[in-house]
Amino acid sequence: MPGEPVAAVEAWLKADTPRLLDELFAFLRIPSVSTDPAYANPIRAAAALLAERLTRIGMNDVRLLDSGGHPSVFAQRADVPGAPTILIYGHYDVQPPEPLEQWQTPPFEPTVRDGLIFARGACDDKAPLWIALSALEGWMAVHGRLPVNVKVLLEGEEESGSHTLPAILKAHRALLASDVMLSADGGRFRVDMPSVNTSLRGVLSLEVRLRTAAHDLHSGRYGGAVGNAAMALARLLATLHDERNRVTVAGFFDGLQRPGNADMASIHAVALDETAFLAEVGARPGAGEPGIPLLEALWFRPTVEVNGITAGYQGAGGKTVIPAEASAKLTCRLGPGQTPKRVADSVVAHLRAHCPGWAQIEIDNPGDGASAYAVPQDDPFLAAVSRVIADVHGKPPVRVGIGGTLPVASMVKHALGIETVMLSYAVSDERAHAPNEFFRLSSFDDGLVAWARVLPELAVARL
Amino acid sequence: MPGEPVAAVEAWLKADTPRLLDELFAFLRIPSVSTDPAYANPIRAAAALLAERLTRIGMNDVRLLDSGGHPSVFAQRADVPGAPTILIYGHYDVQPPEPLEQWQTPPFEPTVRDGLIFARGACDDKAPLWIALSALEGWMAVHGRLPVNVKVLLEGEEESGSHTLPAILKAHRALLASDVMLSADGGRFRVDMPSVNTSLRGVLSLEVRLRTAAHDLHSGRYGGAVGNAAMALARLLATLHDERNRVTVAGFFDGLQRPGNADMASIHAVALDETAFLAEVGARPGAGEPGIPLLEALWFRPTVEVNGITAGYQGAGGKTVIPAEASAKLTCRLGPGQTPKRVADSVVAHLRAHCPGWAQIEIDNPGDGASAYAVPQDDPFLAAVSRVIADVHGKPPVRVGIGGTLPVASMVKHALGIETVMLSYAVSDERAHAPNEFFRLSSFDDGLVAWARVLPELAVARL
Repeated sequence: MPGEPVAAVEAWLKADTPRLLDELFAFLRIPSVSTDPAYANPIRAAAALLAERLTRIGMNDVRLLDSGGHPSVFAQRADVPGAPTILIYGHYDVQPPEPLEQWQTPPFEPTVRDGLIFARGACDDKAPLWIALSALEGWMAVHGRLPVNVKVLLEGEEESGSHTLPAILKAHRALLASDVMLSADGGRFRVDMPSVNTSLRGVLSLEVRLRTAAHDLHSGRYGGAVGNAAMALARLLATLHDERNRVTVAGFFDGLQRPGNADMASIHAVALDETAFLAEVGARPGAGEPGIPLLEALWFRPTVEVNGITAGYQGAGGKTVIPAEASAKLTCRLGPGQTPKRVADSVVAHLRAHCPGWAQIEIDNPGDGASAYAVPQDDPFLAAVSRVIADVHGKPPVRVGIGGTLPVASMVKHALGIETVMLSYAVSDERAHAPNEFFRLSSFDDGLVAWARVLPELAVARL
Repeated sequence: MPGEPVAAVEAWLKADTPRLLDELFAFLRIPSVSTDPAYANPIRAAAALLAERLTRIGMNDVRLLDSGGHPSVFAQRADVPGAPTILIYGHYDVQPPEPLEQWQTPPFEPTVRDGLIFARGACDDKAPLWIALSALEGWMAVHGRLPVNVKVLLEGEEESGSHTLPAILKAHRALLASDVMLSADGGRFRVDMPSVNTSLRGVLSLEVRLRTAAHDLHSGRYGGAVGNAAMALARLLATLHDERNRVTVAGFFDGLQRPGNADMASIHAVALDETAFLAEVGARPGAGEPGIPLLEALWFRPTVEVNGITAGYQGAGGKTVIPAEASAKLTCRLGPGQTPKRVADSVVAHLRAHCPGWAQIEIDNPGDGASAYAVPQDDPFLAAVSRVIADVHGKPPVRVGIGGTLPVASMVKHALGIETVMLSYAVSDERAHAPNEFFRLSSFDDGLVAWARVLPELAVARL
């Protein structure tokens, strides 16, 4: 490995890289934000672009799978009787670009600086997805066939919780039947350390709104007598953690499994410099739970995070009001063994119990969330992906967790009964979900090689 | 009282009320927001409109007094040798109109519904100010002179803390020299209970900003290890009060004087139905300090209020970020005996001491704030105003405090050595500073009568 057939594909991909990047940039220009209904048209445009590309490169049965949300794009090709069928996964939707003023260049005008492609969605997940499709294109262009049976599932609502994906999986179970899912989403832990993803945290979203009066009130005429919704919200959110940054919600940790020996061995193998890790993003130490290694916290511990707060006057200068309304968006990351439903129930009960009596509380629980996921340590497809990474990067990959979530992993396990292995060339420092998100051009080159090689390797994974 | 001269003025004002209201509406259409630099032109336009009116009705020495902020409009007329000189005060600036979507009609398009004028600034302070100027106009139109010596000072930055007013007072001490200030700003406690204002709380503004990382971070990739600025802010703000809603800031209450016997008698005389008071604004009980009567809290107790919080993602849907920045606007209301500087120092020290070590904190302290103010119980001008209110409304007014602040009151006491009495026809339920602010048409009629009568009454206040 690699043999003659894959070497020709790699050469073709290398030669065509400028065109592949041009096409990626056209894809990045589409503001396919799935969390905000205002972007419905760009979402459709992104799905159409992918369907067109899949058709053009020679995939069969290209179609949109729609269950009332943003559609998934499907395609397939079965060229190798008796070989496994690989379900390639990626997502074409992106996070909102706000805060816009913090972008050095516009989020939907991809710009290359110092070998980095800056754009919303660059690393999460448009470039990684584009690498996967380009590998298929390379094989088709050079050999007129793929070296393994392939199905493609490109989701449009990963960033908004994959709400209709379970329905899509259920409705198309036979169409999607495969032996393993290979995800282009995921991420390398560091650019200089070969790694393979073996676990993901789950996720759960909540939104809490407090009301203390019918309308905002003059802080002089009512201050001291009437409740302040912003203050009530601050007090309520402050009850979610204790002074040691541990979640205080009763029942929150129920079912949580401690990381296993192999997981702890991986954490040891990474030998993270925690101080440097924090310094890299301008953060100070002390925000985690004392005594818990940072990587254990990131990969296996559940969290309750505030993603945003809005209350009262936020414009220039001052305004002496008592806000009547205040709201916060929350997400929990879930560790292994936790169920989204149970965690949601515990957090909702905590918020209701700790809300000051002088405030009215409403809590939204949009979507079902997703459980944590781990690929079995002895999965043959994981072994195959690991061999390819070792081959491309010159040493065996460290098995690393991901603190983020691919809801699809637990969903396909449930709906299709298959495991998910990940081969993403995103790196965790590339500002996913934040201003000035980027993707490395060098990762694009490496990713094309790895994806060209992984397809024939997966064909023989179980031999 | 009233004698022939004032009866003729009242008749003239009644006949001219439609025109006076038309002119008021033109004034209300000017978005003279002083807290936001974007409104600099409307501020100038409002000042110019007032200068034009003062000139037109026959006042002398009309001019703008400018010390680098928004100018004050000045005018004077000395028709009564030997009589006191009254410094009439009002302010032409208004609070920001946000949140715009909560207004039933546009904030700068005055609209009459059910006998109420809806507009930003309607009750605070454009209609009350307009009443005062109309009384001057009536006396001039009917008698060609005023019944007392009058100076007029109309401020343009009351809503933004009166930052340059001390400099204006200092630079024009001789020009502004008077025997008493009569403020058109202030407010009646209830529309059905004759009252006269005798005290004001002070005010102090702060803005606190926290930072926990160089930029927003993916809540999956960093959650559990890196600090969350929104959560840090919530925890910090939650430390400002204890569970009994009492301010916990060390040194905050230093110097605070308890209300005197006359104040407590006033509170008793009002006989406030606290439950009904709260229900009227849709608020629940329990947000105040237990055991402290609501009116004592409103008029004499200091507060720390959050006027607004901004952090992270606030748009539609969700965004799984860890906010790197979070900020809150705070105002304190001050009780008698507190000094703004000492309170500011105590709150700043508290915020710095209680900020989590993993967050960086910055605190802005814009302006000097203003102390609480009380007019002496035996002030002869207060007695004169009280006689007029009794005369107009048929029974002696209750002496009431104001929970809000007129920074000018403590400033003129300091700069000009005079007391401030208030004669405002605003009512405390008219949504000052909030959406759908209004002013009663009936108050306009009553106010014209009271202001027509108060001018000759003040002329003989010290006889």
